[in-house]
Amino acid sequence: MNNELLIKMITDKWQGQLIATNKIFDNLSDEELMHEVSPGRNRGIYLLGHLTAVHDLMLPLLRFEEAKYPELQPLFLHLPDKTADAIPSALQLRQQWKDVNETLLNHIKNLPADDWFTRHSNISEEDFIKESHRNRLNVLLDRTIHLSNHRGQLILLKKTI
Amino acid sequence: MNNELLIKMITDKWQGQLIATNKIFDNLSDEELMHEVSPGRNRGIYLLGHLTAVHDLMLPLLRFEEAKYPELQPLFLHLPDKTADAIPSALQLRQQWKDVNETLLNHIKNLPADDWFTRHSNISEEDFIKESHRNRLNVLLDRTIHLSNHRGQLILLKKTI
Repeated sequence: MNNELLIKMITDKWQGQLIATNKIFDNLSDEELMHEVSPGRNRGIYLLGHLTAVHDLMLPLLRFEEAKYPELQPLFLHLPDKTADAIPSALQLRQQWKDVNETLLNHIKNLPADDWFTRHSNISEEDFIKESHRNRLNVLLDRTIHLSNHRGQLILLKKTI
Repeated sequence: MNNELLIKMITDKWQGQLIATNKIFDNLSDEELMHEVSPGRNRGIYLLGHLTAVHDLMLPLLRFEEAKYPELQPLFLHLPDKTADAIPSALQLRQQWKDVNETLLNHIKNLPADDWFTRHSNISEEDFIKESHRNRLNVLLDRTIHLSNHRGQLILLKKTI
């Protein structure tokens, strides 16, 4: 088994989940995004902000570059939905979501195969020697699973006919 | 990068998602399982049956053994929720879910590393030569992402306080 094939397996899943999630977002109006996925739970717009903040943080975690929208972190990672004084508009979040994922994809496509198996930024070089599964490819795998989790919730926003 | 490490990365995610999902199921009463994850959508018990049927089908797909509960397939794969005349009880489905996952885990633990990169049962030997990413490890990866998707919905059944 060569490394390229394994990287393809995982990056294909990442892109597949992104395409499926974008299909949902594109089919939801800004007004529909303001609804809760289930009574009393997160609104679509909060999940959009949350996913954008999480993917933005992948940029430094994968040692690509600094986060582009760090101001999203307190709003969508530290605070629960419906507790912040104000959050960005759906229009702005949709643009940031697109921008972050395009930036990520550019880095992902250009990372040499061997570099995927080097450490991510949240583990020291010393610890990585003992825990070599905590590599950059593992981050992409984790975030793919995370995206799928919230995609399962976002699909509930679409009205059943 | 050795194959063992990559297999560990993916089988760890599989087990992690199963543990997290079982934590939700164990915390839901049989009565709570009868609720819909969001108004008009699937009930918890349907998702339990659906996941059991999908995981049961992994047994032949991974070329481990025959499906143990093929009678679940028409009810939870071919029919939408609330359309079958009758479905098994929560008690029975909980037992089948546990049994299927234990059976799978036994096979997963014992599969030699190289065998993970051989074809799954839905692709011919000829096609596999051209599409070697369609291997058994890829099935486990897909089903991990699938499980996460429905876990995101099941968590909505738990009453918020």
